[in-house]
Amino acid sequence: MLRMACCGRGLCCQCCCSEGDTSTPEELTILGETREDEDEILPRKDYESLDYDRCINEPFLEVLEGLDNKKARKYEAIKWILVFAIGTGLFVDFFVRLFTQLKFSLVGQSVEECSESGCLALSLLELLALNVMFVFISSVLVLVEPVAAGSGIPEIKSYLNGVKIPGIVRLRTFICKVTGVLFAVAGGLFVGKEGPMIHSGAIIGAGLPQFQSITFKKIRFHFPYFRSDRDKRDFVSAGAAAGVAAAFGAPIGGTLFSLEEGSSFWNQALTWKVLFCSMSATFTLNFFRSGINFNKWGSFQLPGLLNFGEFKCVDGDKTCHLWTAVDLAFFVLMGMAGGLLGALFNCINKRLAKYRMRNVHPKARFIRVLESLLVCMVTTLVIFVASVTLGECRDLVSPNNNTSTQGSVNEEVNSTIRRFFCYNNTYNDMATLFFNPQEVAIHQLFHQNATFSPVTLSLFFVLYFFLSCWTYGVSVPSGLFVPSLLCGASLGRLVANVLKINFHMQIYSGTFALIGAAAFLGGVVRMTISLTVILIESTNEITYGLPIMITLMVAKWTGDFFNKGIYDIHIHLKGVPLLEWETEVEMDKLTASDIMVPNLTYVYPHTRIQSLVSILRTTVYHAFPVVTENRDNEKEFMKGNILISNNIKFKKSSVLTRAGEQRRRCQSMKSYPSSELRNVCAEQTAVEPAEEGQDILQQMLERRHVPYPNLYPDQSPSEEWSMEERFRPLTFHGLILRSQLVNLLIRGVCYAENQSSASQPRLSHSEMTEDYPRFPDIHDLDLALLNPRMIVDVTPYMNPCPYTVSPNTRVSQVFNLFRTMGLRHLPVVNAVGEIVGIITRHNLTHEFLVAKLRQHYITI
Amino acid sequence: MLRMACCGRGLCCQCCCSEGDTSTPEELTILGETREDEDEILPRKDYESLDYDRCINEPFLEVLEGLDNKKARKYEAIKWILVFAIGTGLFVDFFVRLFTQLKFSLVGQSVEECSESGCLALSLLELLALNVMFVFISSVLVLVEPVAAGSGIPEIKSYLNGVKIPGIVRLRTFICKVTGVLFAVAGGLFVGKEGPMIHSGAIIGAGLPQFQSITFKKIRFHFPYFRSDRDKRDFVSAGAAAGVAAAFGAPIGGTLFSLEEGSSFWNQALTWKVLFCSMSATFTLNFFRSGINFNKWGSFQLPGLLNFGEFKCVDGDKTCHLWTAVDLAFFVLMGMAGGLLGALFNCINKRLAKYRMRNVHPKARFIRVLESLLVCMVTTLVIFVASVTLGECRDLVSPNNNTSTQGSVNEEVNSTIRRFFCYNNTYNDMATLFFNPQEVAIHQLFHQNATFSPVTLSLFFVLYFFLSCWTYGVSVPSGLFVPSLLCGASLGRLVANVLKINFHMQIYSGTFALIGAAAFLGGVVRMTISLTVILIESTNEITYGLPIMITLMVAKWTGDFFNKGIYDIHIHLKGVPLLEWETEVEMDKLTASDIMVPNLTYVYPHTRIQSLVSILRTTVYHAFPVVTENRDNEKEFMKGNILISNNIKFKKSSVLTRAGEQRRRCQSMKSYPSSELRNVCAEQTAVEPAEEGQDILQQMLERRHVPYPNLYPDQSPSEEWSMEERFRPLTFHGLILRSQLVNLLIRGVCYAENQSSASQPRLSHSEMTEDYPRFPDIHDLDLALLNPRMIVDVTPYMNPCPYTVSPNTRVSQVFNLFRTMGLRHLPVVNAVGEIVGIITRHNLTHEFLVAKLRQHYITI
Repeated sequence: MLRMACCGRGLCCQCCCSEGDTSTPEELTILGETREDEDEILPRKDYESLDYDRCINEPFLEVLEGLDNKKARKYEAIKWILVFAIGTGLFVDFFVRLFTQLKFSLVGQSVEECSESGCLALSLLELLALNVMFVFISSVLVLVEPVAAGSGIPEIKSYLNGVKIPGIVRLRTFICKVTGVLFAVAGGLFVGKEGPMIHSGAIIGAGLPQFQSITFKKIRFHFPYFRSDRDKRDFVSAGAAAGVAAAFGAPIGGTLFSLEEGSSFWNQALTWKVLFCSMSATFTLNFFRSGINFNKWGSFQLPGLLNFGEFKCVDGDKTCHLWTAVDLAFFVLMGMAGGLLGALFNCINKRLAKYRMRNVHPKARFIRVLESLLVCMVTTLVIFVASVTLGECRDLVSPNNNTSTQGSVNEEVNSTIRRFFCYNNTYNDMATLFFNPQEVAIHQLFHQNATFSPVTLSLFFVLYFFLSCWTYGVSVPSGLFVPSLLCGASLGRLVANVLKINFHMQIYSGTFALIGAAAFLGGVVRMTISLTVILIESTNEITYGLPIMITLMVAKWTGDFFNKGIYDIHIHLKGVPLLEWETEVEMDKLTASDIMVPNLTYVYPHTRIQSLVSILRTTVYHAFPVVTENRDNEKEFMKGNILISNNIKFKKSSVLTRAGEQRRRCQSMKSYPSSELRNVCAEQTAVEPAEEGQDILQQMLERRHVPYPNLYPDQSPSEEWSMEERFRPLTFHGLILRSQLVNLLIRGVCYAENQSSASQPRLSHSEMTEDYPRFPDIHDLDLALLNPRMIVDVTPYMNPCPYTVSPNTRVSQVFNLFRTMGLRHLPVVNAVGEIVGIITRHNLTHEFLVAKLRQHYITI
Repeated sequence: MLRMACCGRGLCCQCCCSEGDTSTPEELTILGETREDEDEILPRKDYESLDYDRCINEPFLEVLEGLDNKKARKYEAIKWILVFAIGTGLFVDFFVRLFTQLKFSLVGQSVEECSESGCLALSLLELLALNVMFVFISSVLVLVEPVAAGSGIPEIKSYLNGVKIPGIVRLRTFICKVTGVLFAVAGGLFVGKEGPMIHSGAIIGAGLPQFQSITFKKIRFHFPYFRSDRDKRDFVSAGAAAGVAAAFGAPIGGTLFSLEEGSSFWNQALTWKVLFCSMSATFTLNFFRSGINFNKWGSFQLPGLLNFGEFKCVDGDKTCHLWTAVDLAFFVLMGMAGGLLGALFNCINKRLAKYRMRNVHPKARFIRVLESLLVCMVTTLVIFVASVTLGECRDLVSPNNNTSTQGSVNEEVNSTIRRFFCYNNTYNDMATLFFNPQEVAIHQLFHQNATFSPVTLSLFFVLYFFLSCWTYGVSVPSGLFVPSLLCGASLGRLVANVLKINFHMQIYSGTFALIGAAAFLGGVVRMTISLTVILIESTNEITYGLPIMITLMVAKWTGDFFNKGIYDIHIHLKGVPLLEWETEVEMDKLTASDIMVPNLTYVYPHTRIQSLVSILRTTVYHAFPVVTENRDNEKEFMKGNILISNNIKFKKSSVLTRAGEQRRRCQSMKSYPSSELRNVCAEQTAVEPAEEGQDILQQMLERRHVPYPNLYPDQSPSEEWSMEERFRPLTFHGLILRSQLVNLLIRGVCYAENQSSASQPRLSHSEMTEDYPRFPDIHDLDLALLNPRMIVDVTPYMNPCPYTVSPNTRVSQVFNLFRTMGLRHLPVVNAVGEIVGIITRHNLTHEFLVAKLRQHYITI
């Protein structure tokens, strides 16, 4: 008894921890299941799936009538989202531009103006002070909300995959992320703002349709719609797509991104809304940018926040091609190089992240701030020293390309070069790359006709590679797209220079820079379909489709040979039980019965409150199958008491038979004389409730001092009950969620033993979902208010028809069903309707399947 | 007995008809279920679903090892497809251009050179003769293969939706379609070549990986892969995407098209292959076009076959915008107009199609040829007369736009104008539109700076509208994209002219023409997501994304108010049981038990050959549930004979229990002493087969003179058996297909009564799929070779774990499962594992659900 209670408290403790927000996921991983070995990070058990599948129970059916109305409102809400999502994009961009322009012009000017050494040190100090201040603010904001660190794409990917990550779509996270990334970018760190912008879009998508906030309690309108994980995930999809669309000016790419990651069944209505959302995001952003930045209100000709400029041959030059078939061979080689370098980047970053998890995160929080300040100072020093000492002076525009038709692109590019001690129409190439915002440096590499020196490009690449690798993972909000692109572009430009100068090939340097950028980015992140489309849309040049795609494919294959993409690595380090696209072919050697959990904690259709409470208190499961006993001697067993007879009656009435169905059809179709039917009905209800007699089950339970006979089936088989008894057959009728059970208990939905179950109070659908997304805990329940002998009829509230699989179903089919339908619990039911196990997300993770397959081979 | 046989023959007759190729679908619809009423065309029963879901039976598990090898080959094959798909695209385009250029230059020259009336008549006759000859060839080709008529998109849409349409992906269809569309376009009909090109791509996708042809028996390599509907459908997806990509130069649009129509679960591997396929299609095509047409081999700068040219403001003009926020209001109005006109187009075309089905198709075939010749002659006359008499002479280039920077686009546009009796730097605007290939006319409307007269544009629109409406449905291969675009572009240009001249607005005419084209096309076809992307990619201008999308959405909504899209109308007229995207909310009032078919024809795990043969011969079902009896007195019943005892033994061994599973796990995990297990196993197998005794079931069957007791449950309940007996509970174990059963019978897979079932010969997976896609018919079976008393054990060959639903599952959930997983048969199984019905595609069509819902309301 003592051990029991202890065990119970232990479990509930764990349960509390997993729901609390005080401990970060990393800490839990450290405490929990992270081991020293390489690749031995197992998925953590405390991440739960979303409830994407609908639970069509009786309260839901009651509101079915009003659904048309809801649809209209849903649409309205979607529109709101996008307007806001865009506002964000603009906001971040606007201030980042302001801050960086201010900073670089200030410091740049002071450098250019002085040539004494003391003067240079002053400029450096100035720059350093500004950067450190910015990064400090950013880092402190992340301390407030640790989930706001990083790019946010791993978290959004997990969420769209169907994993609930605490705090990921909250308003506080949003504020910290947006302000944090602003200061991180302005602070000169090698981070991008695209990832955080996607995360911000997703949060707006999740939060707005709720019309309430947990952070700010005052924000709470009466808007009882979209109170389900299903709607929320759909909105998050739309928001993430809008984020991509705003960041890259790529509405189709955004839609594909959220489809690729969301990957539920193809839902045309949703796809359409997502596309509309992201399209509008792009254009609202354009509208404001064209108005605010360029003072041309009403014009929409501007691309997204990140754009690569126009790739265009000089008009007069007829021999110029953006690319030719011959170049494709180089692109393949560059793809391989990008894949290799990306794999190296990921490998280093993974080791760093593990080191941080072990040595930095467990210590006091300010250590993290110190780390980010250190990174900031090193970055600033490198930028400054490299710009001043390592740059070469190059001719500004190579004479033969200097035609007047080149147009506005080159003018814009030329206005952002840095001269730094270079005079006579020359410029400092290293300073031009380092002493500019990253987007400008990318533009320089893509469109500057003048050459960069190979030494400068190599040095730049190496410095940038290691610094950005160190930066990603520091506790500031930090994207990875722009740094990767810049890094790769310098590599591509290097290749172009070598080919042009050493081999005298007729090539377009910008194309090579672009392909280099794609190769390295592809090698690091390995998102393929949506990335291809995003890059094509960003370049606004459909002819780059094939080379970009081939490069990305080669980079992905090369990189996958060594390790996974950076986002997958970080998801893995967080221990998120992500489901892959599909299972490997080999896994089909396993069946559902091999991977299911056979130890069930179940409830009966009619259960006493005391049993429910003890089940809820002593387990951490989130759903319980509703079952009935499957005994031969039901008639006799039933005489026992009202509880058992109620349950058996439910079972009898719920089993639809072909004969019954035929009778129903005959009756409804042709007004078939229903006497036979009535007889059957009468027969079913006429089973007299034997009121007297012993409460057998109850006695049995009390004798064993445990709330439920099969609660601890892992104990040795020498227990009182035989194996046959403990694993006796149970007919499956439905699933009920923990949150639903607690809700029933709190609202006092039950009936007394001497009453009929019809006397039980009924809850409406909105009452059931009122507390979404944070349902009350069983431990908040005041037991004194409950009569433990009352009986709860859970049948109106359970999910009466979840998808089920048979035990022989192959893993690939189970996986498809689970992933496509967005399930949380998948009962395994045998040929005679008895539940034999349950499959959850954790039983379908790659690690679990591999372990099971190994076991399978051993057994054979 | 006599009635039985007759009935049987009647059924088999119907069965034969549905598989034969002699009667066209239209004829069957006429004969069958098409009624006089509007909208009363019910889905035809002879269209079957594809078997997209995998049947993982024992032969399949045996080849599971070799699957890696297969994947590699699959990839290889995909590459082949695209190379070929492109070849087609090029081929069609090349000859069409050749023929039309030849024709128009010939006739155009003769018109321009003469001014006498007799001379004009000669030109007309010349044109008429050429056109009639071309159309005659095209029409005769369609007589050879009637499925080749029309655009092919309805058929591909149906196929990707999961409906088998006979002959749709055959080599003969391909040849007729490609050659036919070539001559139809060259013959001056108002048809496009894009739809047929998509169809051609799909056929190549379906046919190539088979490495064999039914049309040409000699084409038959040993290539035993991809012999399943699943692989075939995937390849068809890729092929259709490649077709779109080649036709419009829109690889992403093509991918989305096949995803949108294919709409299975999001399969990343497949999506990636589809994208690669369509991307390569675009670029192979570009490679050849740039080489052959422009003699610049190795350059890839050319867009797809259909491209809209570059929309660009004159460089000097700073006040010019492609579009502004104000224009959006007009775009919305144009979208509404497009929707209305599209609905009118569809309505007229539907009536025409119905008229044809009733009055033209039942008659002799040559009537159809005559109709197409009539259409051709009328079209030619209209073109000629309108060009010569109705055109206005307009100034060639309005002076203020005639700057030198306009560049190559305008030069190209100006080279294709027609002067027809207009001199002094003027041109005949009607002739320019009518007397050019349709693509050129679209270019004129998009990019010609000179104006077209409003009267000309209105006349052109009206004539084109009715002629193209008449043409679509004539028995030639005919696309609808280009005619719709041209029709809409003239309308858009008209709006632009009115706004420019009457209201003096600063607008870009090309944008309005484009939006008009999008609006009308959207109003006619109503494909939204992929169409948006296709148009965006065709214009190669991302800034048109929002206006195009808004226009298409408005056009779709407006049009949907009146009728469905033209493709859906034709699918409906063909009686294809297409499944929509999702069910309406209201349908959730129905459950699986409301829509299922409860009259089952089933087989037992062990069945005598005579029973199987009679089932196969007297029914037309394509799958049979494998069931066992669910009797209380099994032990006694079992003593009857070996057949029954075998079946009951199978049932016992197949029911996995929790206790059994636990024992297995204990054993496999910890080497748990397995004595208990062994006892259970021994117990299960120790049930002695009672050899003696009467063959009760057999006797019973023979007494009733019917092959199976429940074969005709629709007969009156006054029959010998009671309702209880006829609808007795049956435990569900799996599904077996008709083709599998016939295969087993033909290959003699059976065992004698006095042998064990282990002595039955085993078939490999390749033997099971050898005859794909045309499996032998039961009526081809020589009964004399079979011993009717032999027993077939179907359990190794059945699908042991199809997805099932419970009878209470709501229709939306059933629908999602069915559509997403690409199912063909969905058994409905109750809480105790008894099968109560089967749901097929026909039970989920909109018509069926509406009928059931009406019934549901009546019952309530």
